[in-house]
Amino acid sequence: MTQTPVESNLAQAASNYIEALARHTSDEGALTRLYLSREHRAAADEVANWMRDAGLEVSEDNLGTVRGHLAPTRSDGSNRRLLIGSHIDTVRDAGKYDGNFGVVAGILAARSLRDSGTELPFGLDILAFGDEEGVRFPTTLLSSSAVAGALDWQALQGMDADGVSVREALTAFGCDPDKAGAAAYDPRDVIGYLEVHIEQGPVLEAENRPLGIVTAIAGASRFRVSVRGEAGHAGTVPMALRHDALAAASELMLEIEKIASAGVKDSLVATVGEITALPGAVNVIPRDVKFSLDVRAASDAARLEACEAIQYAGRRIGARRGCIFGFERFHDAPTVPCAPRLQAAMETAFSGMGLQPRKLMSGAGHDGQAMARLTDVGMIFVRCRAGISHSPLEYATPQDMGVAVEALVRVIETLAQQERT
Amino acid sequence: MTQTPVESNLAQAASNYIEALARHTSDEGALTRLYLSREHRAAADEVANWMRDAGLEVSEDNLGTVRGHLAPTRSDGSNRRLLIGSHIDTVRDAGKYDGNFGVVAGILAARSLRDSGTELPFGLDILAFGDEEGVRFPTTLLSSSAVAGALDWQALQGMDADGVSVREALTAFGCDPDKAGAAAYDPRDVIGYLEVHIEQGPVLEAENRPLGIVTAIAGASRFRVSVRGEAGHAGTVPMALRHDALAAASELMLEIEKIASAGVKDSLVATVGEITALPGAVNVIPRDVKFSLDVRAASDAARLEACEAIQYAGRRIGARRGCIFGFERFHDAPTVPCAPRLQAAMETAFSGMGLQPRKLMSGAGHDGQAMARLTDVGMIFVRCRAGISHSPLEYATPQDMGVAVEALVRVIETLAQQERT
Repeated sequence: MTQTPVESNLAQAASNYIEALARHTSDEGALTRLYLSREHRAAADEVANWMRDAGLEVSEDNLGTVRGHLAPTRSDGSNRRLLIGSHIDTVRDAGKYDGNFGVVAGILAARSLRDSGTELPFGLDILAFGDEEGVRFPTTLLSSSAVAGALDWQALQGMDADGVSVREALTAFGCDPDKAGAAAYDPRDVIGYLEVHIEQGPVLEAENRPLGIVTAIAGASRFRVSVRGEAGHAGTVPMALRHDALAAASELMLEIEKIASAGVKDSLVATVGEITALPGAVNVIPRDVKFSLDVRAASDAARLEACEAIQYAGRRIGARRGCIFGFERFHDAPTVPCAPRLQAAMETAFSGMGLQPRKLMSGAGHDGQAMARLTDVGMIFVRCRAGISHSPLEYATPQDMGVAVEALVRVIETLAQQERT
Repeated sequence: MTQTPVESNLAQAASNYIEALARHTSDEGALTRLYLSREHRAAADEVANWMRDAGLEVSEDNLGTVRGHLAPTRSDGSNRRLLIGSHIDTVRDAGKYDGNFGVVAGILAARSLRDSGTELPFGLDILAFGDEEGVRFPTTLLSSSAVAGALDWQALQGMDADGVSVREALTAFGCDPDKAGAAAYDPRDVIGYLEVHIEQGPVLEAENRPLGIVTAIAGASRFRVSVRGEAGHAGTVPMALRHDALAAASELMLEIEKIASAGVKDSLVATVGEITALPGAVNVIPRDVKFSLDVRAASDAARLEACEAIQYAGRRIGARRGCIFGFERFHDAPTVPCAPRLQAAMETAFSGMGLQPRKLMSGAGHDGQAMARLTDVGMIFVRCRAGISHSPLEYATPQDMGVAVEALVRVIETLAQQERT
C-alpha cells in the first residue's frame, strides 16, 4: 500500500491538529484535559475555529459539545444528516490520539469533501464530545448521551473532587444546563454515527494493517470471585489432604484463559486483574482467595455463555478439591453491535483503497455506546503503537492517520452514493 | 486396639498435667507463655515439682531448661544417659499440647519406669526446654541449642519488644547467662534424644491411628517467585497476544502442586501462601506477580530436586508465554533425619502394642533440629484433632496421650534391652 498525495496532505494536517490540541493541558509536561476545564474550553474553541476554517457552520450544545455542520449539496428540505464524532477530553497523563483524532478526522473529512465538491444528499455534523473518559465527575458519556436523547439529568448534580457540580461547571463553561435537553437529535433526522478511533490494542499492529472495521463495542461482565478452602500448616498437611484455595483458584484461572482462548471467533477475552490470598503467610495454606474477573466479547451471547462456562468450571473444580467458589456479578454492560450496513460501507471504502477489511471488536468503551441509543453506529480503528493507550507513549503515525481520514471520506461517499440510488 | 489399665492411668495423669500447665498463662482466657516470662518461671517450677514427685533429681541449666535425672539402676561408673524432652513455652493464644505434652510424657515415662523397677543400664534426663517457639525474642531453639553445645552467644543480646535482652531476662529468671555454656552435654555421654509431640497435621487422624514414627524433621526451602509479563487493557488485547503474568503464575502454581503431589513417598509438600498481582485493576492484564514458595520433604535430595523441577517448569512456562520467572531463595534449612536405630526401637515398641508403625515426616520444626547436633534424634507423633495446632482448638485425647506415654516407655525398654545385650 502506498500513500496517495491526498492521504499525505491529510497525514500532515492530522498531525498538526493533534499536536495543536495536545498543547491544551492542565499539567506541565503531560497531557491532562478534563471535561469542562479551562483547557477543555480552549480546545473546544480551537476545534470550533478549525471547523469554521473547513467551511462548517459551528454551534455548541449545552453539554459543551462542539458541532460543525456541513450542509447537503442539494437540499431536499429535510434535515437528514450523518453524525461523525469523538471526544476531546482526556484521562490524566494521557496520550494525544485517544478521542482527539476522531474529531480531527471528522473535520478533515468534511473539509476534504467540501473541497472536492462531492455531492452529498445529507448534511454532515462533526461532533466534539467532552465527557467520554469520566475522570473529573462521577459520570461518563454525558455529552454523547445528551446528543442521543438519553441524558441522565441526575448526573448533572454529580460533583468533582473540589465539590464543583457538573451543573456549575457547565455554567462556567458557558452552557445553560437547564437547556441540556435541547442537545438531543430527532432520530428521524439521523442517518448514522461514525467514529474513527485509535485501536488501543495490539491487533492491527501485529497484523501490519493501518485500519480495522469494528464489529461491536464489547459488552462486559465483571465478577468478584471467591474461593473458600481450608487453611493449614505448609509443612504438616500432605498434598492429598489439602483444600488449598489458591491452588483451586489457579486451576480456574487457567480454565478461564482456556475458555476465552477458544472463543477467538467471538473476540472473547477474559481477564483476572486483581487477586488476594488469606491468611497470606509463607507457611500457611491459603484459606480464602478473592479475584476479579472481566469478560468481554463481540456478542452478548458469546459473553454470557463464557460466563456460564467459567462458573460451571468453578463448581466442578471446587467439588473435586473440596473448595467452594462464589461468583458475584457486579457489572454487566450489553454489547453494542456496529450496524452491518455501516460495516459494509467501510468494506467498500477499504477495498477501494486496497485495504483488507480486517474486522475486530472494540474491547474498550466509546461514545458510540451512547450514540447507539439514537442511531446506527460504525467505527473505524486506526493502528496504534504497541497497543498502548492512556499513556504518553500512545502513538499513531501521521501516515496511518492520513489513511484513516481518506477511508472516512470514502465511507461517507459510499453512504452518499447509496442514498442517491 | 483397647487400652490397658496402665495406659488408662497414664491418660488421666497426662490430662491432669496438661490442664495444670495450661493455667500458667499471661493472658486471661487464652494460653500464652513466652520464654523467660513469669508464667514460664511458674510452669518450670511446677514441672520441677512433678519431676521430684516422680523420683527424679532436678536441676536447671543457665538457659532455664529444667532437667529431671533418673539414675541408671546399675551404674557402670559411666555418665551415659538417654535424653527425653520438649518445650514448655508457647505461642500467643496457643494450644495446651504443643511441646507441653512432650515434657509431660517424659516425666510420666520416667515415673512409670521407676515405679515398675525396670532395669536401666543408662540414666534418663527429662528436659523441659524454654525457647522453641521463638515468639518473644529474635531467637529460636536457644535452650536446646545450648544443651546440644551449639549455643549462639550473640543471640543472648537479642531483645524483646520491651527492649529486654535475653541476657537480662535470663538473670531475672534466676539463671547466670555467663555460665550458659555449661548447659552442653558431652556427646560421648548421650545415647540419643527422644521427643513425643502432637502431629500438628491431619495424617494420623485421617488414617485413624493414635501414633506415628517420625522419619525426619523436614528441611525447608523458601523462595520469592516473581513473574514479569506485560500489562494491557483487559478489553483490547486478544488472548493470543497476551503475556499475562498471573496466568503464567497460575500455570506454575498448578505445576508446583503436581510436582509436590508426585513426591508423596518423600513426604514432599509445596505451598504458595502469599500472592500479589500488579498493577492490580479489574480491567488491566497483570504485569507483575510475586508469590511465596515453601518446599519441604523428608530428605534434602527430594526437596532440592523438587526446587529444581519447579524452577525448570517456571523457565519453560515463561519461555512459552513470553514472561520472565525469577526465583530468589531466601531460606534453606537442611533436613534432620531421625536415626534409623531409634525408628527401629519405635517399631518394636509399636508392634508390642499392636500398633502399625506408620512412618511420617515432621513438616514443622522441633527441638530435635538442635539436638541432632549432639546426638541421634527420634520422635513419636500423637494424633491431634483436625491437624490443628497453634490454636486454642488444638486437642489430643487423654487416651491417645496414654498410649503415647506407654509407647515411650516401651521404646526406652527396647533401647535398654539393646544396651544390655
